[in-house]
Amino acid sequence: MPVLFCKNILYNLPRSSISKITSSNLVVKRNISNMSSEVPQEFVKVFSKIDSLKPTFIDRLAHAVEIPAVSSDESLRPMVFKKAEFLVDELTKLGFTDIQKKDLGIQPPPVENPKLQLPPVVLSRYGSDPKKKTVLVYGHYDVQPANLSDGWDSEPFTLTVDEKKGLLKARGSTDDTGPLLGWLNVVQAYKESGVEFPVNLVTCFEGMEESGSLGLDAMIARESDSYFKGVDAVCISDNYWLGTKKPVLTYGLRGCNYYQVTINGPKADLHSGVFGGVIAEPMVDLMQILSTLVDSKGKILIKGIDEMVAPVTDKEKGLYEKIDFSVDELNAAAGSKTSLYQKKEDILMHRWRYPSLSIHGVEGAFYSQGAKTVIPAKVSGKFSIRTVPDMDSEKLTKLVVGHCNAAFEKLDSPNTCHAELIHDGNYWVSNPFNAQFTAAAKATKVVYGVEPDMTREGGSIPITLTFEEQLKTSVMLLPMGRGDDGAHSINEKLDISNYMNGMKIMAAYLKYYADSPEN
Amino acid sequence: MPVLFCKNILYNLPRSSISKITSSNLVVKRNISNMSSEVPQEFVKVFSKIDSLKPTFIDRLAHAVEIPAVSSDESLRPMVFKKAEFLVDELTKLGFTDIQKKDLGIQPPPVENPKLQLPPVVLSRYGSDPKKKTVLVYGHYDVQPANLSDGWDSEPFTLTVDEKKGLLKARGSTDDTGPLLGWLNVVQAYKESGVEFPVNLVTCFEGMEESGSLGLDAMIARESDSYFKGVDAVCISDNYWLGTKKPVLTYGLRGCNYYQVTINGPKADLHSGVFGGVIAEPMVDLMQILSTLVDSKGKILIKGIDEMVAPVTDKEKGLYEKIDFSVDELNAAAGSKTSLYQKKEDILMHRWRYPSLSIHGVEGAFYSQGAKTVIPAKVSGKFSIRTVPDMDSEKLTKLVVGHCNAAFEKLDSPNTCHAELIHDGNYWVSNPFNAQFTAAAKATKVVYGVEPDMTREGGSIPITLTFEEQLKTSVMLLPMGRGDDGAHSINEKLDISNYMNGMKIMAAYLKYYADSPEN
Repeated sequence: MPVLFCKNILYNLPRSSISKITSSNLVVKRNISNMSSEVPQEFVKVFSKIDSLKPTFIDRLAHAVEIPAVSSDESLRPMVFKKAEFLVDELTKLGFTDIQKKDLGIQPPPVENPKLQLPPVVLSRYGSDPKKKTVLVYGHYDVQPANLSDGWDSEPFTLTVDEKKGLLKARGSTDDTGPLLGWLNVVQAYKESGVEFPVNLVTCFEGMEESGSLGLDAMIARESDSYFKGVDAVCISDNYWLGTKKPVLTYGLRGCNYYQVTINGPKADLHSGVFGGVIAEPMVDLMQILSTLVDSKGKILIKGIDEMVAPVTDKEKGLYEKIDFSVDELNAAAGSKTSLYQKKEDILMHRWRYPSLSIHGVEGAFYSQGAKTVIPAKVSGKFSIRTVPDMDSEKLTKLVVGHCNAAFEKLDSPNTCHAELIHDGNYWVSNPFNAQFTAAAKATKVVYGVEPDMTREGGSIPITLTFEEQLKTSVMLLPMGRGDDGAHSINEKLDISNYMNGMKIMAAYLKYYADSPEN
Repeated sequence: MPVLFCKNILYNLPRSSISKITSSNLVVKRNISNMSSEVPQEFVKVFSKIDSLKPTFIDRLAHAVEIPAVSSDESLRPMVFKKAEFLVDELTKLGFTDIQKKDLGIQPPPVENPKLQLPPVVLSRYGSDPKKKTVLVYGHYDVQPANLSDGWDSEPFTLTVDEKKGLLKARGSTDDTGPLLGWLNVVQAYKESGVEFPVNLVTCFEGMEESGSLGLDAMIARESDSYFKGVDAVCISDNYWLGTKKPVLTYGLRGCNYYQVTINGPKADLHSGVFGGVIAEPMVDLMQILSTLVDSKGKILIKGIDEMVAPVTDKEKGLYEKIDFSVDELNAAAGSKTSLYQKKEDILMHRWRYPSLSIHGVEGAFYSQGAKTVIPAKVSGKFSIRTVPDMDSEKLTKLVVGHCNAAFEKLDSPNTCHAELIHDGNYWVSNPFNAQFTAAAKATKVVYGVEPDMTREGGSIPITLTFEEQLKTSVMLLPMGRGDDGAHSINEKLDISNYMNGMKIMAAYLKYYADSPEN
């Protein structure tokens, strides 16, 4: 069904949006006026080329987001492969070399199709001058699920270009197709402006980031001394500004452990009139267990987790005071006044350096509008824990599984309970004062006229740590989008100005990093 | 999507099954061998005609279940109307008169489409001889939702005829399309065997039973002195045997109050990495509330409900001891050993005369396989309470809403909570020794050779009570299917022998009731 749905979008809808795109001319002016006044001579050519190529860059994004590459939906797996092909074509056209689609093999259980192939990682190079530094840029081309019926204002897999509001709206616009294409666009801009590309670029684009980056760690390990040999720095553009006004550079991330607890009862769903009151209902057991995980104040109730969290130092406290943020920005991004904290420092710390537990849903139970009077036979509760220093994933899983089993034991239910880790990704913290952070800070100042805030992130990019460990290089997060972009939500968007200025930062960062004495 | 899905079934699949049906000849023999040895002369003609018409009757069922008349799914509402048309055509062909489709108007909120039309009630007559008694037969042509992906062995909206196992498998086969068509088939059998039809028959076939019979009560009240004037007895065939071997007549039903508690938080779903730990999560509040409703032993935790339940008398206790039933039958029907009780009497009482609370699911949260890391913005928990004498629906709703609000207040959450009644249907208890119960008991003895067990039901048929009150007549439940038919579940089935013998009981019951001195 979803595939049909997407075909429909792929063939009927996008044309209109593209015609909208190519008829926009005001933009170069507007963007230049957005730019900081003192653009160094060395960037004028490239920045102007980026502005003049705007219709091409938006067109490229429109074609990319048309492909519903939802990695968590097995039925859409062919679409993830299709999007990998799209990238290969674009890279080829732009003159990238040594383009490889790295096969990651079969997806491990739990899966419906035991032969489900993992999407390939797309590797490629642009330049291989031994005198230049080599920068590996990472992005992911898979996306979160999205359906018009979820409440989108427009087809999620058709790019809506809103010149009035200055928005690019589609699933993947900001997470992470837009930023990923940013690197391709920057190469095109350097090329067409006749300016020498300052570094050797290596691309690593994956298709399973939204589903635990399965197989990527092993691939990076395998390629660390082959394809990735000689990489000096890794830049990941797959996160967001803290708010909506001030650009940031990110030096820390929370990890994410995703869990599923399954209660198994009768052989099939049962009529609640005929069996209600005489059969132990799996859904009742599950509600009891899920209610013991976290309270409404956000406090995790699983014993032993708090003890694993690194204590807050006074020096660390100081960092948060500097940052430009307020509870109003959080409420604005959430579209509600449901923040658990009012003080800036509390919000930032609970977002960045404390763990959190979210309950995402229930598989196997009734989920539609209206009323269905069945007793579900087998239900799985889904929840995830965002992890921080110094939490150990294995130890955490032991605590979570132990907690669920203990909670179930208390119920003395004839049903069965199985708690398991679906996937995990470690947290990461880096040094915000090294060569590439410094280069990116200078680039940000050039484009936006302000020093970026040095932030951490609540979200997870599991392979950040893997790159750092396997390639023994510095890793930096260079966000393109804003805090209110709505990644993983309905009406996901990327501001046109963030798309355009983000590319300029990428372009300038590569140059400044190339010119910096140290690695 | 569901409509596409069903079209697919309607046009591609059924033919094969129908060809299967019409090529079955062994059956008449088998059925006759199933019959009790001493068939009174007055029934030989009609019973033999029922046997010889078997292919026609199964064909009629196959065409009926092809139409996915799911009343709870707004997108399938046109299919419910389509099925009403199918019935009108069949009734017309069989010579029913005064056929009317009673319009019930617009469906009241909560609905997505504010102009959603309720399906019509199909009224018709067969015979209008003032010297004969008039029997109103009720059935419903709407069905529960069903998707192949729920775990069905075959397309749920295609009749699978398994002559080997003696099964008719499809959504609606036993609940309630099969029994409903039984009445049409019986009229055809009397007609074609040249035996005078013993009563005046009035049909009342509704299309919203699985969704609270909206609008039906009012219609029955309106028609009580017009279309339904002169009705002597009401027979409802929309329930099941207690077990799998012994036929039953049913004199009591539990009611059903369906509730929804909705927690509203952020404006849209949020990324759990970015907002986890700083935003009050609606799903967390909901789990807390749902966990306070009922425990894993089936004990309802909402205060004040137990006090409304009529105490068990010693005379009542005696009734349960006679009934042929065991925990093994319950476990067999459930396909598991998850019964909350081991003693027959405990099981029967908790199924028939004590209330139960079932949690059916959550609307608005993640429900698929795999992992999705969002914080749902708005979630609705769905649960229902099966009601018994002397529970008052309004008082119950006050208790439930009060309980949910109090549980939410305790959480001190910045989200909002709204608990509401989606629909309710009252319980019902009748006199199992009146004229039509006696007639049906004799009919059962003739067909199956045994006295039926007099049972109550855990399930709900909301309008049973309405008929009794509005038409001031006796109402009887005459089940056709078995306890393991899987109504509301996957692989719903009706045994071919139950379909055939059920019609014979209907035929004999009408004759015995017609001949009985009293009403």
